[in-house]
Amino acid sequence: MAIVKPSLAKGTRDFSPVEMEKRDYIFSTLKTVFTKYGYREIQTPSFENLQTLTGKYGDEGDKLIFKILNSGDYLAKAPSNLLTERASTPLTTHITEKALRYDLTVPFARYVVMHQHEITLPFKRFQIQPVWRADRPQRGRYREFYQCDVDVVGSESLLNEAEFVLIYHEALTHLGLTDFTIKLNNRKILSGIAELLGKPDLLVPMTVAIDKLDKIGMEGVDKELLERGFSEEDVKKLRPIMQLEGPVTLKINQLKSTLASSAIGMQGIEEIEIVLGYVEKMTAHGASLSRFLDLDITLARGLNYYTGCIFEVKTNEVTMGSIGGGGRYDDLTGMFGLKGLTGVGISFGADRIYDVMEELGLFPTSTMQSTNVLFSNFDKLAELYALPLLQKLRDAGVAAEIYPTSAKLKKQLAYADAKKIPYVVLIGEEEIQSGAFSLKDMQSGEQRKLDEAELFAFLALQK
Amino acid sequence: MAIVKPSLAKGTRDFSPVEMEKRDYIFSTLKTVFTKYGYREIQTPSFENLQTLTGKYGDEGDKLIFKILNSGDYLAKAPSNLLTERASTPLTTHITEKALRYDLTVPFARYVVMHQHEITLPFKRFQIQPVWRADRPQRGRYREFYQCDVDVVGSESLLNEAEFVLIYHEALTHLGLTDFTIKLNNRKILSGIAELLGKPDLLVPMTVAIDKLDKIGMEGVDKELLERGFSEEDVKKLRPIMQLEGPVTLKINQLKSTLASSAIGMQGIEEIEIVLGYVEKMTAHGASLSRFLDLDITLARGLNYYTGCIFEVKTNEVTMGSIGGGGRYDDLTGMFGLKGLTGVGISFGADRIYDVMEELGLFPTSTMQSTNVLFSNFDKLAELYALPLLQKLRDAGVAAEIYPTSAKLKKQLAYADAKKIPYVVLIGEEEIQSGAFSLKDMQSGEQRKLDEAELFAFLALQK
Repeated sequence: MAIVKPSLAKGTRDFSPVEMEKRDYIFSTLKTVFTKYGYREIQTPSFENLQTLTGKYGDEGDKLIFKILNSGDYLAKAPSNLLTERASTPLTTHITEKALRYDLTVPFARYVVMHQHEITLPFKRFQIQPVWRADRPQRGRYREFYQCDVDVVGSESLLNEAEFVLIYHEALTHLGLTDFTIKLNNRKILSGIAELLGKPDLLVPMTVAIDKLDKIGMEGVDKELLERGFSEEDVKKLRPIMQLEGPVTLKINQLKSTLASSAIGMQGIEEIEIVLGYVEKMTAHGASLSRFLDLDITLARGLNYYTGCIFEVKTNEVTMGSIGGGGRYDDLTGMFGLKGLTGVGISFGADRIYDVMEELGLFPTSTMQSTNVLFSNFDKLAELYALPLLQKLRDAGVAAEIYPTSAKLKKQLAYADAKKIPYVVLIGEEEIQSGAFSLKDMQSGEQRKLDEAELFAFLALQK
Repeated sequence: MAIVKPSLAKGTRDFSPVEMEKRDYIFSTLKTVFTKYGYREIQTPSFENLQTLTGKYGDEGDKLIFKILNSGDYLAKAPSNLLTERASTPLTTHITEKALRYDLTVPFARYVVMHQHEITLPFKRFQIQPVWRADRPQRGRYREFYQCDVDVVGSESLLNEAEFVLIYHEALTHLGLTDFTIKLNNRKILSGIAELLGKPDLLVPMTVAIDKLDKIGMEGVDKELLERGFSEEDVKKLRPIMQLEGPVTLKINQLKSTLASSAIGMQGIEEIEIVLGYVEKMTAHGASLSRFLDLDITLARGLNYYTGCIFEVKTNEVTMGSIGGGGRYDDLTGMFGLKGLTGVGISFGADRIYDVMEELGLFPTSTMQSTNVLFSNFDKLAELYALPLLQKLRDAGVAAEIYPTSAKLKKQLAYADAKKIPYVVLIGEEEIQSGAFSLKDMQSGEQRKLDEAELFAFLALQK
């Protein structure tokens, strides 16, 4: 067996204990919130049959799906001409039949259809699992990354949208974020605007252009609109709509007068108003969420997909792309033959949230530390003296370790330091003779002598 | 886009909300125990470079590794002759360079070597992640399944072995198992026996044969030994050793006299004694573990791998293969060029533990239920009446839902039933007029009227 210098596959990451604890802090905070709103977790397999995934993400997406080579003599039945012509793309379906999950949405749709007779609608689920994409890796973009999706299918009620606003607010607040914006929009408002311009067929190019306002500015958007079939007059009409400013209620009133002639546009506005009304009612007992909410009609996100409300969340504390997004879709499961099932869902960008929290120092110190106390180990006698108490502490729920050999004290303290263990118990001849323990506080360096009962009582409080 | 009838890839599973909660109950119980003993979690990527994995699992293992097809024009540089000859096996390394994780041990070894300058030895880690094998799927055997490994590297101390005994005992006891056996053995004892027979070179065939005692009985083992180069006399000598009965101390004494002439054999026995001595010392405050412990010299498990203590755990409550196992290995990281790093580890068979717990009814009812209360929804008025209290309950940590539309009561109660929601709040005209709420206990069917403060107080206790 030749020795290989170990390396990670391109675009993948190891997670160290400290990183795991921080990630776990994020995921368990999110799970607690999702569960409080009646969402329950499911998991789907890492790989699906190839035909479950292909054709769902467009041609570009299909190329980014990782395919798994068939086992055994996979070339046995491959067409000769494809082999001699080195026709990579058409050969693929002959030598692969499985592929790694590309997102959580398509497997969820498959799940709903396959389990339709077991689940009760509305079905509220969340799912936190890795997905894989054969993208070119770059800073912040990985080939393996976690998605975190929350969706409800089988309910048209806008209460669901309102609860997603509350879920975003509650989850991000619990994680320590204090200044973020939950942007709302509605595809129907965008349809209304396209109708207003008399160009309903150009809805998609219009939204693609105005979605870029943040990046390319008003002049850039104008230019793109003109290139995509809009007239100077259209551009002039659009500009004030895109530049709507002020509180949400004001924006709504302005849109109402602008879109008065468009039934669909007015319906989109009404949906936003209903959602906001629900949010207000549900926060009647607490502080208003209005400072976290905005109506942003340039928000489009996956428009070929969403049919109603659209969400996006941005933090205002650090420069970062969106940390969440979602919306309503009218036909999640049609691709698997189950028609007419509406759904709405949001996702959390866990990697970005991690980076934001790191930058703002929001991870609690509890995530840095796992063991509460280390018993040092000077010799066999000290070791045996320590063991009963060590185990008694564990039985009381305290995370406790003993250094497994009688190494130099310096080494043992370095171990405690590296693991951020806050207390070290020192046991020498003197301690054993007097039936005591010396406790060293690793932060302050202070050391004091305690008897077993005192030490137990003190450490039992540290867990 | 053609409609595909959805199906799962062969050998894979979906996990429903109820299954997830039960699995989560197992994993979080295990994590709590591991953490108390100073172990910390890491994760490695789902796929590794192909050369990291190949050659580590033997020829049969290599065939079971799932390889990922290269992206893009993967045939461009494939040797022509391999294509025309349809030489599937040699072509593989030309069209794949990544493969799915086959176990957690090799990626852990890679992790230790790659991060050797960041980690502090002894390094205690646990890892709970799926692995993939291209096995023929059958009852209880999946192509995607979770492994749960706990290992420490960089410490020779037998305290580690003793702590693994405690970890097994504590974890399984916390999960509700009451009758299980942690079997111990030591490769050095097996070497001693082979030495005793004067056939140290036949150590492996000998252990392969005696490892089958449970399955093929004494006569079957005898037959296999004779076929594998042992004499009638050897078989006669071996029989009483294999048939050792009684308490562990008695077995140890018998082995001591049998193996007195073998230095390595005596060393193996001494190691077992030291481990048991540590266990006894650490349980000085509580009940003895002796009824959970056994010395089983027929236990071999992956002998080409383990160099010292060997563990295996069996439940005695239901018929089931081993639910855990492990041992000490002297050279985990040598395959990646880092020599002389000893380690010891155990694993938990999570799928089997799940089946045992299911059969014995050990999952707590809390795993069946996630939402504490459902507010019914008769009309807009009742909905708005419910919302402030609904949210107040969530703010207090109660998992609460409102049925999102005013469907028929029967349907709403069926929803509560399906989700095992224990309480439903009914709000009709009468309740609204009197400022009250009716609370239905779904178990007993009882219904009573409460005002907001009473209802809040009652439900806040249910979370």
